[in-house]
Amino acid sequence: MKNYFSSNFKLGVLGGGQLGRMLLAETQKFDIHTSILESNKNAPCAEICNTFVLGDLLDFDAVYNFGKTVDLLTIEIENVNLDALDKLEEEGLTIYPKPKDLRIIQSKARQKNFYIDNEIPTAEFSHYAYLEELKHSYENNIIEFPFVWKAARFGYDGNGVKIVRNIDDLESLPKVECITEKLIPFKNELAVIVTRNASGETTTYPVVEMEFHPEANQVEYVICPARIDFKVADKARELALKVVSKLDFVGLLAVEMFQTVDDKILVNEVAPRPHNSGHYSIEASYTNQFEQHLRSILNLPLGNTESKVAGIMVNLVGEEGFSGDVVYQNIEDILKIDGVTPHIYGKKETRPFRKMGHVTIVNSDIDKAREIAQKVKETIRVISK
Amino acid sequence: MKNYFSSNFKLGVLGGGQLGRMLLAETQKFDIHTSILESNKNAPCAEICNTFVLGDLLDFDAVYNFGKTVDLLTIEIENVNLDALDKLEEEGLTIYPKPKDLRIIQSKARQKNFYIDNEIPTAEFSHYAYLEELKHSYENNIIEFPFVWKAARFGYDGNGVKIVRNIDDLESLPKVECITEKLIPFKNELAVIVTRNASGETTTYPVVEMEFHPEANQVEYVICPARIDFKVADKARELALKVVSKLDFVGLLAVEMFQTVDDKILVNEVAPRPHNSGHYSIEASYTNQFEQHLRSILNLPLGNTESKVAGIMVNLVGEEGFSGDVVYQNIEDILKIDGVTPHIYGKKETRPFRKMGHVTIVNSDIDKAREIAQKVKETIRVISK
Repeated sequence: MKNYFSSNFKLGVLGGGQLGRMLLAETQKFDIHTSILESNKNAPCAEICNTFVLGDLLDFDAVYNFGKTVDLLTIEIENVNLDALDKLEEEGLTIYPKPKDLRIIQSKARQKNFYIDNEIPTAEFSHYAYLEELKHSYENNIIEFPFVWKAARFGYDGNGVKIVRNIDDLESLPKVECITEKLIPFKNELAVIVTRNASGETTTYPVVEMEFHPEANQVEYVICPARIDFKVADKARELALKVVSKLDFVGLLAVEMFQTVDDKILVNEVAPRPHNSGHYSIEASYTNQFEQHLRSILNLPLGNTESKVAGIMVNLVGEEGFSGDVVYQNIEDILKIDGVTPHIYGKKETRPFRKMGHVTIVNSDIDKAREIAQKVKETIRVISK
Repeated sequence: MKNYFSSNFKLGVLGGGQLGRMLLAETQKFDIHTSILESNKNAPCAEICNTFVLGDLLDFDAVYNFGKTVDLLTIEIENVNLDALDKLEEEGLTIYPKPKDLRIIQSKARQKNFYIDNEIPTAEFSHYAYLEELKHSYENNIIEFPFVWKAARFGYDGNGVKIVRNIDDLESLPKVECITEKLIPFKNELAVIVTRNASGETTTYPVVEMEFHPEANQVEYVICPARIDFKVADKARELALKVVSKLDFVGLLAVEMFQTVDDKILVNEVAPRPHNSGHYSIEASYTNQFEQHLRSILNLPLGNTESKVAGIMVNLVGEEGFSGDVVYQNIEDILKIDGVTPHIYGKKETRPFRKMGHVTIVNSDIDKAREIAQKVKETIRVISK
């Protein structure tokens, strides 16, 4: 094994947002020197990593040159220059997740084709290179309202996903490559986090249940464990393992799924990195997802993914109507409640629906945790001065 | 309440060692800008704090000038220039723990007198301004072997504490101000962490049990909860609360105690900051001691001090016979065990008995945790290349 701990080994991370920041907590715990490439000099990781390099993640030279300064490269965001990663890999750099997997995942259309090619159940879809093609399909009655529209690339946190219900919705879509999907009538949105190291050791976290904000298309609550039948949970875990196996994936993969009204499980999409649906693990799990990601990419033994207690996560997003220097109103009231931990991502300015932090609620009783989560949600407000 | 989170508020910390580093994990979680004053440019906090200032903690100007740049000042080591703190406090800076309490705690002699003045049970002691005075006492049969010798100031991690059994031991003592104590025949060494904020809200952590390395005088295992009768535990918690109340303390105070053969509890000594005996709390408690320290000094509501699971901590100290670039031999073997988390403090070089890190073992079954802790202890070795 390489000597990672307090050594000259250098881990490189593409991206310096909140996911990178929570990963840094783990690299600091293990004292693994961590360099960050990021285009925003005020990003959450800027002041607290070992080495901070300013640069555009989609720029070939920026990524390539950064890659040459580290011993192993990972990502905290999937929209990075893949040609640079290919060249770095050719030249011998270890990169996890693998560039070939990032190439599949970066494009929603390729992701969908991958599921179909590998007999992984997913909602039916169509692929359009331009918005005009989609409009043409509608005019020719090939596609009907309502349907789900997704930008083929660069979507995140609900941006790039819309439910199209009428002609006005259709007209207002961005003019980009996209896919459309049938609107699935589902009982639950679920997620399973799988990790796999280079030796092939694989773990799954418990199935979590997600509740979305009806308008913003952002997760409001993530509940672990999901309050579903264990057979459904087993099916979801098996399906997530199948995705990882078919990708021959190394690293941490978050698999988002639908549980349909007739208890089928369909894969919605995947993220090749620590994910919002696993933030609860920092307080609730024996090994949190960021430590597990690190263990997997370094080919260390993977940790125990079980939970010590039930965990619920509430996202802290900027309230509508507020922009500017952030204030977390009533944060002292939620700090009074047992088992409540806020995570503040280090963004000085709030904007409507911007992800500013999250709060974890842990309790030995999941119903009690759910009650407290509601109270937290109703109490704290992310506003501006 | 002040707006601490993602604001212009600046927390200052005197000292940049491992305790500061673990505190930084919490200030990062809450996004509280943290400045560190520290004399070693390679200290554990150097690369990962918001602002790092190089300076001697015992130098008036260094401490005073640093204090002028922050909004609230705390410590991670008690040996700091108190005259500078007095002046800063006079000029309006909030400092927790209070300089008057640091003055009592910095000197073991003053600490002992404080216990006696406040009827806090403690081992009998004598105070000597010079080693010659102690020798004189021995020659005149005022003091008998064996006894415990403690340097009056600047002791840490077992340095500055010796059991003196014979004339050779006596001759080899450093020529400094000291105290001596009767050697107490005790059943257990216990510790209780108390936190109190400026509003007077007070919490105690569960009583922990400590096992010491027989030679190095360093803690080998810290076990939470202590496997003692609940009446003894209650007595220990009450005594710790009495110390905090008599000091009118604000911040986190670790109170180390002896449980005598006849179940009396005696205060051994206190530390006015997060402490080795509370490291288990990072993995085991609802609120860890570093977050709780932060909450107390910022006068935020205090968190839940109960444990999710049983926790045991093993110190990682440099093995005898090894000095230089550190290697954590067999760390991958301990990472294979469920519920085992190493913390590596970020010191590049090991030395015999140097505190290099710790490992936490958590398990729902405390006996199982104790077995694993033994295995961890026997597996990992802190050596040099």
